Amino acid sequence: MEKTELKDDKSKEVEEEQVVNPWEVSAKDGGKIDYDKLIDKFGCQRLDESLIQRVQRLTNRAPHVFLRRGVFFAHRDFNDILDSYEKGEKFYLYTGRGPSSEALHLGHLIPFMFTKYLQDAFKVPLVIQLTDDEKCMWKNLSVEESQRLARENAKDIIACGFDISKTFIFSDFDYVGGAFYKNMVRVAKCVTYNKVVGIFGFTGEDHIGKVSFPPVQAVPSFPSSFPHIFGNENIRCLIPCAIDQDPYFRMTRDVAPRIGYHKPALIESSFFPALQGENGKMSASDPNSAIYVTDSAKEIKNKINRYAFSGGRDSIELHRKYGANLEVDIPFKYLGFFLDDDAEMEHIREEYGSGRMLTGEIKKRLVEVLTDLVERHRRARAAVTDETTERSQAIKISQKDLRQQKDLR
Amino acid sequence: MEKTELKDDKSKEVEEEQVVNPWEVSAKDGGKIDYDKLIDKFGCQRLDESLIQRVQRLTNRAPHVFLRRGVFFAHRDFNDILDSYEKGEKFYLYTGRGPSSEALHLGHLIPFMFTKYLQDAFKVPLVIQLTDDEKCMWKNLSVEESQRLARENAKDIIACGFDISKTFIFSDFDYVGGAFYKNMVRVAKCVTYNKVVGIFGFTGEDHIGKVSFPPVQAVPSFPSSFPHIFGNENIRCLIPCAIDQDPYFRMTRDVAPRIGYHKPALIESSFFPALQGENGKMSASDPNSAIYVTDSAKEIKNKINRYAFSGGRDSIELHRKYGANLEVDIPFKYLGFFLDDDAEMEHIREEYGSGRMLTGEIKKRLVEVLTDLVERHRRARAAVTDETTERSQAIKISQKDLRQQKDLR
Repeated sequence: MEKTELKDDKSKEVEEEQVVNPWEVSAKDGGKIDYDKLIDKFGCQRLDESLIQRVQRLTNRAPHVFLRRGVFFAHRDFNDILDSYEKGEKFYLYTGRGPSSEALHLGHLIPFMFTKYLQDAFKVPLVIQLTDDEKCMWKNLSVEESQRLARENAKDIIACGFDISKTFIFSDFDYVGGAFYKNMVRVAKCVTYNKVVGIFGFTGEDHIGKVSFPPVQAVPSFPSSFPHIFGNENIRCLIPCAIDQDPYFRMTRDVAPRIGYHKPALIESSFFPALQGENGKMSASDPNSAIYVTDSAKEIKNKINRYAFSGGRDSIELHRKYGANLEVDIPFKYLGFFLDDDAEMEHIREEYGSGRMLTGEIKKRLVEVLTDLVERHRRARAAVTDETTERSQAIKISQKDLRQQKDLR
Repeated sequence: MEKTELKDDKSKEVEEEQVVNPWEVSAKDGGKIDYDKLIDKFGCQRLDESLIQRVQRLTNRAPHVFLRRGVFFAHRDFNDILDSYEKGEKFYLYTGRGPSSEALHLGHLIPFMFTKYLQDAFKVPLVIQLTDDEKCMWKNLSVEESQRLARENAKDIIACGFDISKTFIFSDFDYVGGAFYKNMVRVAKCVTYNKVVGIFGFTGEDHIGKVSFPPVQAVPSFPSSFPHIFGNENIRCLIPCAIDQDPYFRMTRDVAPRIGYHKPALIESSFFPALQGENGKMSASDPNSAIYVTDSAKEIKNKINRYAFSGGRDSIELHRKYGANLEVDIPFKYLGFFLDDDAEMEHIREEYGSGRMLTGEIKKRLVEVLTDLVERHRRARAAVTDETTERSQAIKISQKDLRQQKDLR
C-alpha cells in the first residue's frame, strides 16, 4: 500500500470528477463527496467501531462525539499509535490552520475541538502550525496581513481550551529556521518536482513558493523540528486534520523513513457542510454559507432559519406523511456534530425522520445549541484577548516544562 | 534590456554550445569561454576603462589588480552605485560561497580578495552568505557535513582580512528565518516554475529543494533581510561574484522592484583557469588541477612545474625564435592575477613573449608569488583557528556597531 501512496492523483481526479486537495473540494456532478472512494483513492483506512472502542478503553472516557458520529472517519496507522501508547511510549499531536480569514467558522473549529479532546484524553503535547507563509503565497496577502490573521486566529484556537502548558502554537513566518529549516531541506531533497505535480497538481505557471511549501507543512511531523520541546526523542506524531490535507502527509509519510523518522499517523475528518447543503466546503466569500464564531445570537438564528437547507417536506401534510429527508437535512447534520447527547440525538432522528417533529422545531433546537457554543467560544476568546501583554506569546508559546509534563501521563 | 533579462537561457545554450550556469561551465568544443558572447547573452555590461578610472578617483587609491587586468570584466549598474556613492549615499557588499569542500583553492579566493579591496576602498558593510543548504541539496552532503564545511570555509574567508567589525558571515542553516524567510516568500511569489526552468534549466526529476533555493540566494540582495544590521534603510547592494552566478541575480533584479527594493548591482569576474589550461573552472575531483590554500611549498612547486600548461615552445631554439604563446600560458595568466607589480608584469610579458625568458624562469617566479600568498593565508587562517572560543561567532558575526560604523565613510 505504501508504495502506491505517491501515485499520480491528478490524472485520477480527472477520471473520477471528484476533486479533493488542500485547495479544492468538489464532488462529482455537484453531488456529495464519496468518502469511500476517497479512502480507496488516498489509500487510507476506515476508522471502524473496534478502533473507537479501543480508544474508549485506553483513555477511560467516552469517545468524542466526532468519533461516535463518524466525523473523523479515516486514519493512517492510528492503531500503531494506540499500540505504542499502550506500551507506555509517547506521541505528540500536530494540527494547524492556514490563517486566511479573520473570523473562524464552525467548520474551522472541528479539528481543534477534536484535537483538544485527544490532548485531554491522552495527555500529550501538541504543536499547532499557523501557515501564514502559505496563505501569503496562495491568497496573495501581504506578509504583514498574513501574520496579523495568524495572531487573530491563534486567539480563537487558544479559546478552544487547549492545555497551554503542553501546547506550542507557532506561525511559520516566526518559526521557520534552525532545526525546522534543516528538516525542510532534508524533505525537499527527497521529493522531485514531478512528484509534487502528481500529488498537488501544480503547473509550470504556478510560482515556486507553492512548490517550496509542502516541506513546510511536512516537517512539524518530525519531533526534531522542535528541539526545545522534544530534545532528541524520536517520538511518534498523530495528526488530526480534515481529509483534504491528506496529500501533504502522504508525501511526508513517503519521505519520513528515508530521513530516519517515523511516518506520522493521521486521523481524518469529513468536511463540515455549508448551510446551503452538503456538497463540499464552506465558502469564505459567502458569509451566509457558514456560522462564524463572531456571529451574534440574532445572526445565528437568522442564518439557520433562512439558509439552512431543510430535508422537511413541502407541506405539513406531506411532512407528517413521509417525514424529513435526514440524508440532506442540514439542521439534523449540524446537530450531529454539536449535540453531544446521544439519547436526544436518537430521539430527534426518530421524531423528525418520522414527521412528528417539524423543521421549525429542529431549527429552534439547533439555534439553541449553536448560540450556546458560540457564546462560550466568545467568552473564552475574550479572556485571551484581554491578556494583551501575552499577545506575542499567544502565537509562540514556548513551554520550557513541556518535556517534563508530557511524562506525567 | 531589463525586460529580456529573464529570457529562456536553456534554449540559447543549446544553440550556442557554451554553457555557463551556477553548476556548469563549459566552453564551445572544449575551447575557451567566449566572454563577449556571455555579456551579450546575459545582458550585462562590459566594465570599461573609464569606469575603472572613476573608481580610482572616488576611492583615492590604485584600482585593484583584478580591475587593472580585467579579471572583473562585466557589471550591472555598477555606475549607479558609484553615482549614489558620490552623492554620499550608502551601499553594502554581498558575496558568498557554497561550502562543498574543506580546503579552498586559489579560484575560490578571487571574489573574496576583490571584495576585501572593495570593502577597504569604499569602507562599506559586507554580508557573506555560506550556502550550506545549497550544497547539502546539490552535493548530497548531510546537513551536519555541510555545516561543518561552512564553519571551516568561514575561517578561510575571515583569513582574507575583512574588516570584521563591518562583516556579517552567516550560514543559511543558521540564519534562514525571520526577516530573511519573509523576503524568501516575497521573492518566491514573483517567480514561476517555468521561469526558473528557463533560467536554471531544472527538470521535472530535479528535487524541489533545487526549485526552492533561488530565493535563498536572492534575498541577501535586500537590506531588510538583515534588520539587525540595516534597520529599515533601503540601501543599495553591490555583489562581486564570478559571472556563473549571474542567473541568480538576473532573477533577483527582475523581482526586486516588484517588492519594493533596489535591484542589486553586480561586478562580475571571469573564471580562474585550471592548471591544465583555460577551458572552464577547476575540478574538485582532480587535486592536481588547482593550487589549494592548504598546499605546502613543495606541493605548489611540484604542481606548477609538472601540471601548469605552458605556452613555451617545444625546444629552446623555437622558443628563442617565436617566444611563448601568452594566450595559453598558465604561469603567465596566474601571474596576471596575483603579481601586483605592473612594471614587472609588463617586463615578463616582453621577455617571455619574445622568448628571452624561458618557461622554467616564469614558473619559478610564479612559485615564489604563490608560495608567499599561500603562506600568508595559512598564517592568517591559523590566527582564526586559534580563536577557538570564537568559533561559533566566526560563522555568525553579528556586529551591533555595524550601523554606526558604516556612517564613518
